[in-house]
Amino acid sequence: MRLEALSVFPELFEPYLSTSIMGRARKAGLFEFVAHDLRDWTHDRHRTVDDAPFGGGQGMLMKPEPLFEAVRAIESQGREKPYVVFFSPCGHRFDQGVAQRLATKERMLFVCGRYEGVDERAYELADEVLCVGDYVLTGGELPALTVMDAVVRLIPGALGDENSAYDESFTDGLLEYEQYTRPAEFEGRGVPEILLSGDHARIAAWRRRNALERTALWRPDLLAGADLTPEERAFVEDFLSVRRSKEDGRV
Amino acid sequence: MRLEALSVFPELFEPYLSTSIMGRARKAGLFEFVAHDLRDWTHDRHRTVDDAPFGGGQGMLMKPEPLFEAVRAIESQGREKPYVVFFSPCGHRFDQGVAQRLATKERMLFVCGRYEGVDERAYELADEVLCVGDYVLTGGELPALTVMDAVVRLIPGALGDENSAYDESFTDGLLEYEQYTRPAEFEGRGVPEILLSGDHARIAAWRRRNALERTALWRPDLLAGADLTPEERAFVEDFLSVRRSKEDGRV
Repeated sequence: MRLEALSVFPELFEPYLSTSIMGRARKAGLFEFVAHDLRDWTHDRHRTVDDAPFGGGQGMLMKPEPLFEAVRAIESQGREKPYVVFFSPCGHRFDQGVAQRLATKERMLFVCGRYEGVDERAYELADEVLCVGDYVLTGGELPALTVMDAVVRLIPGALGDENSAYDESFTDGLLEYEQYTRPAEFEGRGVPEILLSGDHARIAAWRRRNALERTALWRPDLLAGADLTPEERAFVEDFLSVRRSKEDGRV
Repeated sequence: MRLEALSVFPELFEPYLSTSIMGRARKAGLFEFVAHDLRDWTHDRHRTVDDAPFGGGQGMLMKPEPLFEAVRAIESQGREKPYVVFFSPCGHRFDQGVAQRLATKERMLFVCGRYEGVDERAYELADEVLCVGDYVLTGGELPALTVMDAVVRLIPGALGDENSAYDESFTDGLLEYEQYTRPAEFEGRGVPEILLSGDHARIAAWRRRNALERTALWRPDLLAGADLTPEERAFVEDFLSVRRSKEDGRV
């Protein structure tokens, strides 16, 4: 997989993508990364990439010309056209399902806006516009790193253990069950006894139920899309109705 | 504002927090930042922070002892106890409203997990557990930087222009209107004529309507919480009903 970023701060990516799991996956050849400096596609002395918005208003916008020129130039490099991703609060919500879909791409270019945003016409360059969350950031660099991290760790071998990415939150539509490690007692705080039992079938059943309960408790919105058996649906309905009764003060 | 991070990769924060708006805000004294290395609170030769999960399963968990020791030690430094933030898919959804709330804190400590997650008992240390989106990352460092970025840019003066943070997506519950900058025509692509009219009242009305339409089109879920006049609510209802009719093939 080849990942590229287009940014006025191309140096922001290297530290993260050279560290820990990202760094190891990159050294192992699971992905390569190239950062492009948007200012390389400007033609004035000041290497200007921004201008004031038409109609007035605060802040500066990214001009269309350097973006069009840069994306076209990068697209013409290499054998395969990159899948071009922009970021905007108006974009498609990035989630684990999108990460899984992007993990099948061979080449991606992440275009990182700065300032107040990007001239609306430049979105025409995007194959997809993503939104990593309902908050406003100073630029697209952190969203790009976020998407790269979520995608790279899904590449087989990236986590060192091919299965690690499957048994975790969102993958099957549920939050992950709670987890504990040694010591079994820490300052009076124990761990659920069943986890110490060595009974793997019962542990698996407990974990599944725990994941269902946590999801029902904290993210009931996820349940509609989760892959549940009829028995699990009934369990969740029961769990939620008991909770509702408690909240109503009837139990 | 004093921001601190606890991580096994404390060096990951500095590049981002020294660059652009973050770097300028920091130099201007609007916030200070300290990174703590979690391994400083281990006591074995290998500076171990992780261990295998009870009950089996892949990957490693963050052990509770170094986390408890570190957070307590950091809390005892300085005059004011930090507001302690953990990250987890089970956490409270981070959004612009949470950013505004956190922007009032004087001191925050972001605790960054790695590996398969954190021993469940360690969440007791958190004043708040946040989730930046429905995706899985290799660690809490990018979420911590994301929250820091969203919060710092809300500090008056951070954007260089005190009002810049108000007229943007999510702040009033709507997506931002579309924006354009020069040239007025780029390869045959124009800009909405009204933006060139100089009529500021009409431009303001157009932008508000554009923000309403974009929100209705892409994020209708935001409308329920948005601050709209009765006329705006009627406009949005009308806009949505016309769209529904079109989708049904009735118009």
